[in-house]
This record gives sequence, structure tokens and C-alpha cells, in this order.
Amino acid sequence: MILILQPDTDQQGAPYRQLLDYLAQLPNIRTRVHQEVGTQQVLTEIYLVGDTAALTIEDMQSLPTVERVVRVSQEYRVLGRHKDAGRGSSFDYNGVTFSQDNLNVFAGLCAVDNPEHVEIMLQALQRQGQTCTRMGAYKPRTSPYAFQGHGKECLPYVFELAGKYGIKVIAMEITHENHVREIRDALERTGHPTGVMLQIGTRNTQNFELLKAVGRQQDMPVLLKRGFGITLEESLNAAEYLASEGNRKVVFGLRGMKTNMADPHRNFVDFAHVPVVKRLTRMPVCIDPSHSVGSRDRAPDGILDVMHVTAQGVIAGANMILVDFHPAPEKALVDGPQALRLDELAPFLQDVAIARAAYEQRRALAVAATQSDVD
Amino acid sequence: MILILQPDTDQQGAPYRQLLDYLAQLPNIRTRVHQEVGTQQVLTEIYLVGDTAALTIEDMQSLPTVERVVRVSQEYRVLGRHKDAGRGSSFDYNGVTFSQDNLNVFAGLCAVDNPEHVEIMLQALQRQGQTCTRMGAYKPRTSPYAFQGHGKECLPYVFELAGKYGIKVIAMEITHENHVREIRDALERTGHPTGVMLQIGTRNTQNFELLKAVGRQQDMPVLLKRGFGITLEESLNAAEYLASEGNRKVVFGLRGMKTNMADPHRNFVDFAHVPVVKRLTRMPVCIDPSHSVGSRDRAPDGILDVMHVTAQGVIAGANMILVDFHPAPEKALVDGPQALRLDELAPFLQDVAIARAAYEQRRALAVAATQSDVD
Amino acid sequence: MILILQPDTDQQGAPYRQLLDYLAQLPNIRTRVHQEVGTQQVLTEIYLVGDTAALTIEDMQSLPTVERVVRVSQEYRVLGRHKDAGRGSSFDYNGVTFSQDNLNVFAGLCAVDNPEHVEIMLQALQRQGQTCTRMGAYKPRTSPYAFQGHGKECLPYVFELAGKYGIKVIAMEITHENHVREIRDALERTGHPTGVMLQIGTRNTQNFELLKAVGRQQDMPVLLKRGFGITLEESLNAAEYLASEGNRKVVFGLRGMKTNMADPHRNFVDFAHVPVVKRLTRMPVCIDPSHSVGSRDRAPDGILDVMHVTAQGVIAGANMILVDFHPAPEKALVDGPQALRLDELAPFLQDVAIARAAYEQRRALAVAATQSDVD
Amino acid sequence: MILILQPDTDQQGAPYRQLLDYLAQLPNIRTRVHQEVGTQQVLTEIYLVGDTAALTIEDMQSLPTVERVVRVSQEYRVLGRHKDAGRGSSFDYNGVTFSQDNLNVFAGLCAVDNPEHVEIMLQALQRQGQTCTRMGAYKPRTSPYAFQGHGKECLPYVFELAGKYGIKVIAMEITHENHVREIRDALERTGHPTGVMLQIGTRNTQNFELLKAVGRQQDMPVLLKRGFGITLEESLNAAEYLASEGNRKVVFGLRGMKTNMADPHRNFVDFAHVPVVKRLTRMPVCIDPSHSVGSRDRAPDGILDVMHVTAQGVIAGANMILVDFHPAPEKALVDGPQALRLDELAPFLQDVAIARAAYEQRRALAVAATQSDVD
Repeated sequence: MILILQPDTDQQGAPYRQLLDYLAQLPNIRTRVHQEVGTQQVLTEIYLVGDTAALTIEDMQSLPTVERVVRVSQEYRVLGRHKDAGRGSSFDYNGVTFSQDNLNVFAGLCAVDNPEHVEIMLQALQRQGQTCTRMGAYKPRTSPYAFQGHGKECLPYVFELAGKYGIKVIAMEITHENHVREIRDALERTGHPTGVMLQIGTRNTQNFELLKAVGRQQDMPVLLKRGFGITLEESLNAAEYLASEGNRKVVFGLRGMKTNMADPHRNFVDFAHVPVVKRLTRMPVCIDPSHSVGSRDRAPDGILDVMHVTAQGVIAGANMILVDFHPAPEKALVDGPQALRLDELAPFLQDVAIARAAYEQRRALAVAATQSDVD
Repeated sequence: MILILQPDTDQQGAPYRQLLDYLAQLPNIRTRVHQEVGTQQVLTEIYLVGDTAALTIEDMQSLPTVERVVRVSQEYRVLGRHKDAGRGSSFDYNGVTFSQDNLNVFAGLCAVDNPEHVEIMLQALQRQGQTCTRMGAYKPRTSPYAFQGHGKECLPYVFELAGKYGIKVIAMEITHENHVREIRDALERTGHPTGVMLQIGTRNTQNFELLKAVGRQQDMPVLLKRGFGITLEESLNAAEYLASEGNRKVVFGLRGMKTNMADPHRNFVDFAHVPVVKRLTRMPVCIDPSHSVGSRDRAPDGILDVMHVTAQGVIAGANMILVDFHPAPEKALVDGPQALRLDELAPFLQDVAIARAAYEQRRALAVAATQSDVD
Repeated sequence: MILILQPDTDQQGAPYRQLLDYLAQLPNIRTRVHQEVGTQQVLTEIYLVGDTAALTIEDMQSLPTVERVVRVSQEYRVLGRHKDAGRGSSFDYNGVTFSQDNLNVFAGLCAVDNPEHVEIMLQALQRQGQTCTRMGAYKPRTSPYAFQGHGKECLPYVFELAGKYGIKVIAMEITHENHVREIRDALERTGHPTGVMLQIGTRNTQNFELLKAVGRQQDMPVLLKRGFGITLEESLNAAEYLASEGNRKVVFGLRGMKTNMADPHRNFVDFAHVPVVKRLTRMPVCIDPSHSVGSRDRAPDGILDVMHVTAQGVIAGANMILVDFHPAPEKALVDGPQALRLDELAPFLQDVAIARAAYEQRRALAVAATQSDVD
Repeated sequence: MILILQPDTDQQGAPYRQLLDYLAQLPNIRTRVHQEVGTQQVLTEIYLVGDTAALTIEDMQSLPTVERVVRVSQEYRVLGRHKDAGRGSSFDYNGVTFSQDNLNVFAGLCAVDNPEHVEIMLQALQRQGQTCTRMGAYKPRTSPYAFQGHGKECLPYVFELAGKYGIKVIAMEITHENHVREIRDALERTGHPTGVMLQIGTRNTQNFELLKAVGRQQDMPVLLKRGFGITLEESLNAAEYLASEGNRKVVFGLRGMKTNMADPHRNFVDFAHVPVVKRLTRMPVCIDPSHSVGSRDRAPDGILDVMHVTAQGVIAGANMILVDFHPAPEKALVDGPQALRLDELAPFLQDVAIARAAYEQRRALAVAATQSDVD
């Protein structure tokens, strides 16, 4: 059960104290307080865990400072889209809005290799008016003998160059809680020229200790990728580990499922789940077309498969795209074969814009249909 | 190896005889002759099977009546898209063109239940200017104790009503070679008021005897659905069973893969393979959003998942849509929960039109990019 | 609901007529009569289908000739193991007993290639005291351009040689209902020197028309293999298609599931389902180690993987083994790489005997434990 | 490339120094030194990584202290079973031998709930002569709101009770590197009454940072479970992360794959891979029948499915069994439904003994066959 308090409730005030005292004496009920600090107001929610079946919504609604009460199912308590909860599905970070209603493109390097490539990439993004990118510093690899990324060594120049070219958010995979500290330190030492969205990859979707550690910090938002051998429900439950520790700035990423039924694609593209995740939770949904497709194959219509599946995600309402580019794909240290070339950046963005415009037309049509139903 | 002969080569003429005689004496080589009768010309192809490695393209090209020689890989000999073969990827049937370049919608009843529902459905289609439909007479069901469709009993009224409402092609699943005869008989007895595209479902994708029987007739085109437990390559090879018996009017249907990774969808939507099938073969590609999704769930943007995945297939170039509608879904004998209602037909078609227009814009963009490369 | 009549109930007698008359006037109830002709007695069962919830067991038990009444769930009506039904789980064919309690080995050729190899194979089997074999005449192949088996041409010599070497039952895959007639004709023309168990392969598990055609004949028993892209429940329902048409002499075959999670094995070995099928149904369970493993790889203990998985099936109570041998695997036209050599036949049978003895010890232990519980 | 040095090579001696100096000047070659401290001798291996194609085996074999040179493929460098390497496949820990040639049973509690249950369990094990157990203190759970185990709080009493009842090794899952320290501390504080095998579960199979941290300690052996959404090859590569950091005391655990094709079992039992893992690597192989089956269902022969699949693993040569027991399964906090009861411990062990004896008979038969080939 969630008690949503009146906006800007004073946590030092008497009514709030009364409320907590009352809750403290309820048998078999534990409480957890969440605060969401928005630009307009501070929102406080109190989660009641335990034997909540014994409580009534009416009783709870009559308590001091309580504005609304929502009974939630076991699943996705924090991030779930509970009936009539009217809770938001967006957040801001470093000047960029992440929402179930808009779209951000994160084109960039799967793995940082050297400062020259980083700079060429960021320059190209700025030229196209982009303010987000992806840059991989820590790379989990199947074999311990493969290149594992430049790690914290590359962070200073990546962040400085990002600042130079007006990048506001970099999506960056981490595989250990220490990486959070390393990233925070490097941001501080370089004077916060940019922001970072912490990305947790498919191999760590159920690495609950990492999720809890990342969830405990609330500076940086998190992109959690779906786990490839588990159900969607299990992956959404994993996102809840982040939220239950306090960080609700979570984007959920679809990246394809591992099965040979996907051949010749590298993974089975799962972007049909874009509307499903938006229905079940309040998280914006990211798609990762590069890792899903894993090649530069092209249909007879001249369009790359990577672009086809991107358009598929976008026309169904995807909110974020993570896509691999590289100035010299043949020299890339990781996943070169799937990377797009820099001269494909402008056409890629145009292609995305067509699909996004189509989505918006479709949404307007649906809204119109609903309204005519009402009339 | 395929010898593509000069158009309208006379099979009674001396040069053609000479060619066959020459081929007959080649050691370890068998030949098979295919004819494609178009509206403009008759195209003859001779397939050489066996020890073709010993033959050179130059030698074969110098033979009488031979216009072009294509060396094909083992796979997808007839339906494959072999390099430089320049063979077509479209066919006509009863006034409707099926092609990798256009789009036909087949909305209709998953299972015919009674003449009233059929008539209401067809009337609605005519009102929307539609000339194709789906109508299920023979229904394969998991349990022998479930309703199996009205079979040949319903064919006469289905065909007559189709004629009455201007329907030119009905997609209709068959599960036994006798059904081909039953359909042909019913069409004859009712005076050919419409046409039928024979549909082979996912349970029979590798029912090779059925494929061969259906492939031996060339009156009616065939829609072959992908098999749900096999690789894409194996399903495409199954299509080749139809073609190797002589029927090349084949559309390939994507309908989702069976795995609980798809939950809450009924099947794992596989429309990312639309461009793949078009690259590997010359078959137009059909999508079946109703069976893939299997529910009427709706995203927070007000759009049904069935419509979202339809748009995903279409924006990537799908050429045919098979979609379940029903005048009274709650009374449908089969798969009612996934059927759209008749008042959703117009919005559905508008939604499809938006996605198709987006696809055409994307294709024009890709063509322009290619041409600017050339300049 | 099933009415199990008194043994040897006379279908011409007045009480039986009365019973049928009574059932005929029940609203919304259809009836179906099954007869099982055993060596000792004739067993008649009447299936009531439709609105049986309205009937009580007491009422039905009081009807003339009715000995016992079983209320069955929707699933596996005929072949299911319904609580307290006390119906058998074995059948005899041509002197061989197939049962959930015993074990028969069917070693032989995956695909018949020539009379010499057939004879060498059968001779070797006779030398080992074997009376069953497998012989493939009709081979479904992924590509239409691959060898499809010698078909009916080879049947006469296969049957005659089987008779010569004392083989009583040959498991033989069929892919079309005509094959049943071809086999019956060849058996007749050769004077019934042997018997045939009709095998339906994984590609046709849900080819319901073939199942119904095969189910309508009751001469020959049927081995139905599990379908590789469907759930176990769906495959067991497919077996019910055979039974609902009248043929209950059905063995269910496990042959591995198709997924790259099985690598380096060809299929994911599913023999853990041996006890499951025995619990859910009354069918004896067959395992197919050759197609599951698909190679001649050997563990460091010197034992072939094919033998390891065979032992796994047997120690859990498998009732039939289908295994590929070949006098010259390197010359086999189909699946040579997985075939065992003839000098491996005796060790294979010894290995199986060890596993079977272990199973019987385990069963005795379980029975003893149950009895001591009772004491 | 691996240089296996003469046993007991002195790392302070001149020849060893010479060797390292020589290797240091090879272009594009990095070296890594591994030491295996056995009871009889110290074995030193030097791994050459990088451009080893340029080196010859002859040259390397002529270097001081080098006894044998093995060229290894990219995969499984340390744990792999490379041709002719003649390296061992066993290790000792706290008086227990883990080997590809023997069998250890780890029956115990999936999750520690209270000291009483721990003591009852251990007492029962001692009564059956068992010296190993499983005890779960840290439980990764799909939902953050589910019971996560008693963690370090329970370690002291678990270890003390283990000592009291003669348990030498406890398999215990960890999910964070800190848990290693917590376990080591608790062992020290309680005076090392027992030993611990660190278990890494399927959700962390590719949590490479955890693997590296665990691999860096060499006190305790590691049980690495197969990942459920990845190929076997990828899981074996993950084991290599442990070994490449220095810990080779690794057991590999099969625990079933997640797919609805497994229904009604919880996971798809993968014990057919027991011989495969033994062929590809030098790791002893563990099976986890409880989590694979996930229920107490019983076949008509009276044997539980959990026991059937255990026997399947053992008859194919499994070396370790992890199995859930509980004094009161209905009160267990985690996975109660699959736990065996204490009165089933003796029959379980008897059942395992039958299967193990059968395996040994089979192995003797294979050895005899090989020897008769040689004669």
C-alpha cells in the first residue's frame, strides 16, 4: 500500500510526525519513505509493507497529510503503473527529459578506444544537434582473455570532450559498484562537464547486489537492460530493486533475446514489448537495435536491418535509442561489424524522425477515436 | 544451376529440343523445367541438379535459347534471391498483385461461424474499399475435442457472399490435400465468384507431403506460415517444397515464435524478420499480428498492442497483413479474445496507412542516399 | 465422463440397448463408443462429451451394464491417467508387449539404403536375440533437394528379410496417410512376415489429419514423437487425436527439443520427461538417443554420449529405445555421423541392461519404502 | 600456450629467472604465472598470451625448467581439457576430494531459517555418514520484497553446528564479494570447524566482477552454476574467469534451463550435458535436481521426479549432487515445495548408490571394450 502525501509536506511538521507515529504502532507493518524532488515540488510517498490486507483505504486516507492511497499488487510496487495512481512516468536529468512521451537518441561508441575516435564521434553528434551519446568504458566480455574496455583511465578525456561538444548525458555501462564511484570522481575532477546515465547490461540484470548499490545513489539515472534468459516479468522485478533502494530514475532497455530462432540476427528483436513495458510500468523504454541485429545486413529496399528494427521500436512508442556508431568500424575493438558509419548518422536521424512522426500521428488518431467515443 | 531461357521460347522448336538433348547427355545431371506464365510473356527456366560444379557458366550460356545462367547455392533454389539473377518478386492472382513492393490487407474471420457474421464482415470490408479477406473453414486445434471449423459445408455461402461484396481473394487455411479439391469444387459450383489463397499453418510448415500436394496445383497461390519450433532457414526451405513442385506464387507468413519469453504476448513477435525474408528470398512477406499478440491489451497511449505490432511490420516493409476481426468477438468460436471489432476496422486501416506512408518515405530516403553516393 | 461397462457386455443385448437409449435422450450430450479387444475379454467404454457437469456419478453408475464411472478432465480423455480409473497402460502387438513396465529396444537403420545393409543389420540383431528394429523408408528432409528415402520400393525386401531373421515389429516413419496403405499392401503381398509400428515424426506431431487417418486404422500401433516447438501438453493432446479416432495402441516418443542451448548436442535431451509422460498418460514412453545427441562424441570415461543419454532414459523407466545403427556409417545416406557401428551393438545392449537393472532395483526400493509406510 | 614446468621448480632459482627473462623479451607476448600447490608437489604453469603463433613448441620445450608445452585454443585456457596435456581433473579441500572420477552428495537446506532446523538437518546427515551439506545464507530473489536470507547473522551457528556434526564442506551461495570476507571472518571467529565451497548462482554466472573477486582468493573452492539464458560455451568461459585469476578449484553445476518447454518441471533438466562438460573441461560436474524439477511430483512407479533426474545425472557420471532437504518443507521460507523430507534421506542415498554402482559398471564395461580393441 502506498500513501501519497500532499505535495511539499514538511517532514519536520507535526502532522507528518503524527502520521509516522500512527503507522509505527500498526502490527506487522513496516514503512519506507520515498521522496521525489521535482523542479516544482517535493513529493513524498510512504510504502507500507507487510500485513496491509488488514488496513482499509478509507482509514488510511483520513490520516494527516495523506492525499491519496493506492493499494498495489506484489509486483513492481514502486515502478509499476497501478490503477488510478496518477503517478508520473518521466524524470529530468542534467537538462534532458526522459519520459514515456518523448524520444532521445544515444548514438555513440560501443567501446571507447582512443581520444581521437571519441572526439570525431562527439563532433559529428554536435553537428546533428544531438545532446546525448553512448560511450563504453567498462566492457563485460564472454572470455576473460578478450579486451575489457579502458575503464576509469578513459573517463577524464571522455567527460571533457563531452563537455566541449555540448553533450549532456552519456549512457555508460558499469559492471561493479566501484565504477559508480570512479565515474562520480572523474565527473568531479573534470568539473561536471556532462552527465552520466549508468547502464546495467543483460549479464547483470539479476545481479541484485549491483542493482541495490546503484539504487542507493540518486545522482545519476539508470538504464537497466532486460535479461536474456528470463521472463519480462523477472526483468521488471529486477528494475524494482533499483527503485526499492530509492532511485526511481530508471529507463528499461530492450535488447533482444538470445536464441537461434533469431538467426541470422544476433538476438531475437523484442521491440513488440515496447507498449507492454509502458503498460506495466512507468519507466521510459529504450531500444538497442545494434546489439539486437548484430550486423550491417541490408534489405533489398536499400535499408539496413538495424534501421528497420529501430523504426519498428520508434513507431510503437520507444523513448530512447542506444545505437552503435564508429568512425572506423573495421578498427573498432568491440562489435565493429554492427556499428554504423559517421556518414550514416544524418540519414539515421532522418529515418528515426520519419518513424517518430508516424508514431505521433498514430497516437493522435487513437486519442481522436477515444474522444469521439466519449462524444 | 538455373538456365533462364529467352522469353517465349517455343517448347516445340528445334533450338529448345537441341538444348534438352545436350543436357540429357551430361553425366550426373538431372533437369527440371519450370514455366512461369505471365500476362506479357512465358518464362521458361531449366534447373540443373546434381554435379553442376563441373559445368561452366560460359558453356551453358552459349547453348541455344539460353539467355542467362545463374549458379545457385543449395538453398532456396527456386524462391531464393540469387545474386544478379534479376528474377521477379511478385505475382498476380485474380486481379490482385502480390509483391515485395506493395501491401495487401486481409482482415476477416479467424473461423467462419455462420452466414450472418460472414456477410456483416464482408459488407464492412466493402465499405472500406477492401478486396481481400481471411475466412477460416478448416481449423486445426490442439485438442481433438475442440471445434474444428465448419469445413466444406460453409464454402458455398462464403464464396457467394465474397462475390456479392467484391472480394477477390480469400486467405483460407487448409490442413489436408483434399481441402484443395473441396475448395476448387466449391469455387466451380458457385461460378468462381472469388479467388482463394491457400494458407498452410505453423503446425504444418514441415508437413512436406501437404506442401508437395499443394505445390503441384498452380491455380491458387499459397501463404506458408513460419514453423514455430524451427529456424527461419528451415521454414524457408519448406517454402521451397512448394516451388520445387511448380507453384511459385508463394507468400511467406511471420506469426511469432512460441516461447514464454513472449509473455504476456501469446507468441514472440518476429516481424524484425520482414527485411530478412525479403533479402533471402523473392517471396512477399505477410505478418499475422492477431496470433502473435493474442489479446486486446492496449498501451497507455490508447493504441492496441495488435495495432502496434502491425505498424512495426508495415514500417519495415511487410507486404500482407492477416488480421482477425469479428462482428461479436465474445461469441467467436475460435480466438475471440484477440479479434478486433468492426468499428475498429476503419481506424485500423488508417493506422496501417500511416505506417505504410512512413515506410515509403523511408524507402525514398534510402534510394536518395544511394543515388547521392553514385553522383 | 467415461462409462466403463462390465467386461464382455453384449452389444446386441437388451441392457446395452437400454443404456444407449437412455444416453441418447440426455440434453447436450453426445456419446462415442470405444472397444478394446484383449486376449482375455472385450472392454467397452462409452465417452460422454458435452454438458456432463449436469450428470452425477451415482446416476450414471446405476445404469444397466455400467461397472464404473470416471469423470475426466478436458485433457487426454482416452490416453490420460485419470484418478482411480484403473485402466491399463500396455498393449500387445504381433507377440511383443508394449507397456509402461517393460523395455523394448528398436535398433536399426535410420534410412534403408540397400538390401545388403538391411540384411547385415537384421542378422546382427538376431545374433543378439533382438526381435524389434527400426527401418526408415519414408524420410522427411528439410530440403526438397535431399534424399527422401526409397519409399514403398524397399518395403517388400525389408519385410521379407525381417521375417527371415525373426523380427516381429519394425518401427517405420510415415509422412502421408497413403503410406499406411502401402505398408499394409506390402505386408499382405509378402505374407505378413513381420509387423510394423507406424512412426509419426516431430515435424508431423500436429499434422492432425495424418493423426486422424492413422488413428482410424487399428491394425498397427503408433509411435508418436514429441513436437519440437510446442509444449509437452500440446504433444500429449496430439496423441489424443489418434486415440479419439479409435487407436489406443500408442507409444509416445521423446527425441529432444530444438534449441542452441543444447549445443554441442543436436537437440536438448528431454528424457527427464520420461516419468512425467508416464504420470500424465497411460502411454509407454520411447526415447530416441540418436537424434537427440546427433554425434559420436565420447566422454573421457570412454562412453559415447549416445550411450550416456540412453542410460539416462532407461534408469528413469523408459519403455522403448529407438537407436540408429549402420553397417557402414560413413556410407549412410541420412544421419550417418550419429549411427553406432555393428560391433557396438553387443556393448550397447549390455550397457542398456545395466541401466535397466538399476531401474528395477530402484523401483523395488520405492515399493519397499511404500509398503513399510503402510505397515 | 602453456609452459608446464618441472615439479617443484624453485621460483628463486637461476634457471627459473632465466626462463622469465627470456619470455620477457618476446615481442607481443604477455605472461601469467599459475601455481598449483598439491599435497605431493608444487606445479607451476606459465601462460603465454598474445602473438603465440610465432613461437614453436620445440623452442619453448628447450627452455630451462620447462617440462612440457601445450598449445591451447582460445577457449577455456586454464580449465580446458587440452589434447595430451595430461593435467589433472581433481582437487582436495578440507579432506574431501572433488574429481571427475568420484561422487559427493551435498544434501541440506536451500535457505537457513533457524538453528533448530540446521541442527536437525546436520544430525540426520551425520547419521547417514555424510560429510558435506548445502546451507543457504544469502538468497537472491526475483522480487526485492521477498525474504533474502539471514546473511552473515546465521554464519556462526551454521559453522559451529557443522563442526559438531562432522561436516567438512558446506556449499553456500554468495552474491557479493563482501560475502567472501564475511564467510572467512566467521570461519576464523568460530575456529574453522568446517569448510565452505562458494557457490555462484545462475543469475550471476556472467557477473564477471564477482567471478574475478572470488577467483582471486584460493582458500575456498567454487561451485559455478550454468547461466540459464546463455550457451554452454558461454558458461564454461565464465568459469575461466575464476581460473584466470588463480583459483582452479572449480566445480561446474548443471541446474536446468529456463523455458516453458520444461513444463511441468520448473526448468529443462540438462543433465545430458554431464559427459559434455567432462569432455570439454577438467572440472568435476555437479547436478542440482531440486531446482531443475521444482516439485515433489511422483511417477506411477512410486519414485519422485527429483530422484529420477538425480539418477539420470549420476548414471552419466555426475560428481556432485546439490539437493534440497528440509525438516518441515511446509514451513521452509524458500523453495519448500521441492524439498525432500528427512525420512527420505536414507532412501535418497540408497537410490543414488544404485545409480552410481550402475555408472561404475558401465565405465568398467567401456574400459574392457577399449582394452579388447587394443589386444
